[in-house]
Amino acid sequence: MNGIHRGIDAGIENLTQGYTHAFESTFETTQGIAEYVAHPAHIEFSNQLAPALHQVLTINYQSNTVHL
Amino acid sequence: MNGIHRGIDAGIENLTQGYTHAFESTFETTQGIAEYVAHPAHIEFSNQLAPALHQVLTINYQSNTVHL
Repeated sequence: MNGIHRGIDAGIENLTQGYTHAFESTFETTQGIAEYVAHPAHIEFSNQLAPALHQVLTINYQSNTVHL
Repeated sequence: MNGIHRGIDAGIENLTQGYTHAFESTFETTQGIAEYVAHPAHIEFSNQLAPALHQVLTINYQSNTVHL
């Protein structure tokens, strides 16, 4: 993992669908994401965090630039 | 707006909550997001795009680095 950024919704639009926080992690490869997701330390951390979360939504994607 | 990136969920986790695509735009300031959201060209584009979308979720946030 190259890094994590986070933030709280700033209330500009009413499109959060009830979600409040964003977390963004970057990886070199999608294989790297798969290894992170399956890692025992990640699973243990996720299990500890889960009771504090109402719902989680994750999109794992290869980031491609949109040319305007 | 500094740029847009996009991607399609890679199917690594079953946490998409039915969402399929991610779009990430960066701005210099949250005020810049507010101006973009309220711009007539953005509203017109959004209205054209809406019929093609099942549901949209947006989190606008100031990105802060998580120090691991």
